Amino acid sequence: MTQYASKQVHLRERPVGLPDDGTWNVVTVDIPEPVDGQFVVKVGYISLDPAMRGWLNDVRSYIRPVAIGEVMRAAAVGVVVSSKHPQFPEGVAVSGPFGVTEYALSDGTGVSVVDLDVAHPPTWLGALGMPGMTAYFGLRDVGALKEGDTVLVSAAAGAVGSVVGQIAKAAGCTVIGIAGSDEKCGWLTELGFDAAINYRDGDVLRKVREAAPQGIDVFFDNVGGDILDAGLANLRRGARVVLCGAISTYNDTELAPGPRRYMSLLVFRASMTGFVVFDFQDRYSEAVEQISEWITAGKLSARETVVPGGVEAFGQTLLGLYSGINTGKLVLQI
Amino acid sequence: MTQYASKQVHLRERPVGLPDDGTWNVVTVDIPEPVDGQFVVKVGYISLDPAMRGWLNDVRSYIRPVAIGEVMRAAAVGVVVSSKHPQFPEGVAVSGPFGVTEYALSDGTGVSVVDLDVAHPPTWLGALGMPGMTAYFGLRDVGALKEGDTVLVSAAAGAVGSVVGQIAKAAGCTVIGIAGSDEKCGWLTELGFDAAINYRDGDVLRKVREAAPQGIDVFFDNVGGDILDAGLANLRRGARVVLCGAISTYNDTELAPGPRRYMSLLVFRASMTGFVVFDFQDRYSEAVEQISEWITAGKLSARETVVPGGVEAFGQTLLGLYSGINTGKLVLQI
Repeated sequence: MTQYASKQVHLRERPVGLPDDGTWNVVTVDIPEPVDGQFVVKVGYISLDPAMRGWLNDVRSYIRPVAIGEVMRAAAVGVVVSSKHPQFPEGVAVSGPFGVTEYALSDGTGVSVVDLDVAHPPTWLGALGMPGMTAYFGLRDVGALKEGDTVLVSAAAGAVGSVVGQIAKAAGCTVIGIAGSDEKCGWLTELGFDAAINYRDGDVLRKVREAAPQGIDVFFDNVGGDILDAGLANLRRGARVVLCGAISTYNDTELAPGPRRYMSLLVFRASMTGFVVFDFQDRYSEAVEQISEWITAGKLSARETVVPGGVEAFGQTLLGLYSGINTGKLVLQI
Repeated sequence: MTQYASKQVHLRERPVGLPDDGTWNVVTVDIPEPVDGQFVVKVGYISLDPAMRGWLNDVRSYIRPVAIGEVMRAAAVGVVVSSKHPQFPEGVAVSGPFGVTEYALSDGTGVSVVDLDVAHPPTWLGALGMPGMTAYFGLRDVGALKEGDTVLVSAAAGAVGSVVGQIAKAAGCTVIGIAGSDEKCGWLTELGFDAAINYRDGDVLRKVREAAPQGIDVFFDNVGGDILDAGLANLRRGARVVLCGAISTYNDTELAPGPRRYMSLLVFRASMTGFVVFDFQDRYSEAVEQISEWITAGKLSARETVVPGGVEAFGQTLLGLYSGINTGKLVLQI
């Protein structure tokens, strides 16, 4: 019986603060041949997500923590190399929760076939993957986006933010992005953003006010901390703040101070709503169809930062996500 | 031409932190006889509201600040003593934004006739006044209250909180109140609250968890600070946090830390929404009718702490509000 020798990254130890070498074990395991209803995927690209840091903490959250000794959870794209599953025959490209591994055995749970004619594999982890779903449902369903709205998005050059901004532009909105370098801001301008603010230059609150003197209708926040406050201070009456993430705080060792400006929600009769994209699972196909259409029509530009190095490079690449090395979706090539 | 010599409280100086004697001027002015379309009210009771502190700050908010030298803004109840206004004849009891004054000249803006057969005058500043409206619309419209919900309310023995809890009980909910003394907690239990937590005993977060192990569906927060965090840490999926006020922070000289636990909104797919009761002005009569019915039927107990002393006692009585001297609505008798 054939087996696949597969390097994998396991969680060795829960990190305090930033993960480091002690956090991970790289091990080689044998992935068995599939039995009926199973298939084996050779992984090509692995998604790096800000949320991964949260999965390492042993706390109650929207998803169970990764266990010590378990393969690190990750979305990935690959090709079926051996199959006893009728829906996922050999040779087909798939995306799914395969983890940080070279090969994965799957029963199809959470797996979908991806169409490489629409976009290359990394895009299926970005604009057509979880980040795209997050942008689409977060902005439209949670944020109740309307034509003419003024939209603020933080981490705007990231995987989610860049799609958020482009969907908002496609919907006829004014869009302001906050990002962490002039280069990223330049890209946002190319994408059609009406304003781009480099938060490393400081005074974000005032710059948002200048860019949106009438205030913000929808604030899609991926960052938390001072950036969240800068947005809260600039809401318009009836604004919707969409809480998607708080990347600025994920590696904190203590619970960071919350948004000082939260009483803006009262002054502006505004709401702040959290969501988890998994809740929209039943409607992913709607979003994939729509985003594919935009990509094909040239209305949405999907961008990825692809880092080589295989599973051994996972730990370092994850750190890069928190320091902001990526423009668009950060993907590890296996 | 008759005039009414009237003592009034004017804003002398904007306070930093807690208001003190330097904040106010007590002056005597002459209130003239009304001309056509006007009437004069002899004020009997003045409302003390946590929000008053915010009105003293020269910042952009949901209402313009009280100006230096202006009569302190306040809701009040009184009797028309002289009238050239057909809707408000002499002898009728009225409530309106008369300010901290013994007599007020009015053109009827924001004034309504009150029915003293339903309740005595102080109740028209409490359960049948702004606090009652705030509880009614905040809980039902903003909080989307449903039968069977578990409801947490802070400052639960206050003017708004005590009505919130009773409306929630009337709607078939489980209700947990947070208040600042054992005596207040005892009253909440008498009112039918399922649990009452004295926050001065500490560890509110754990006590809320014990009282609501399944989590909170609607959290009506009047307090902010640690109390808000204690609620956020105990939400149930899909919870609605109604931001009504933040009395714990109103006298702070610096912007207090925000709610550290705000990312609970994401974990629990919850929302936090601010509101201002004035936005529901068109529907006040609906709430007055409903609350009157509950009071008459004995289903809602309206309670006030009435402090004597006239307008001179305004400054001291306002401080009492922030130290929690009141059970139910705090009212100054003129």
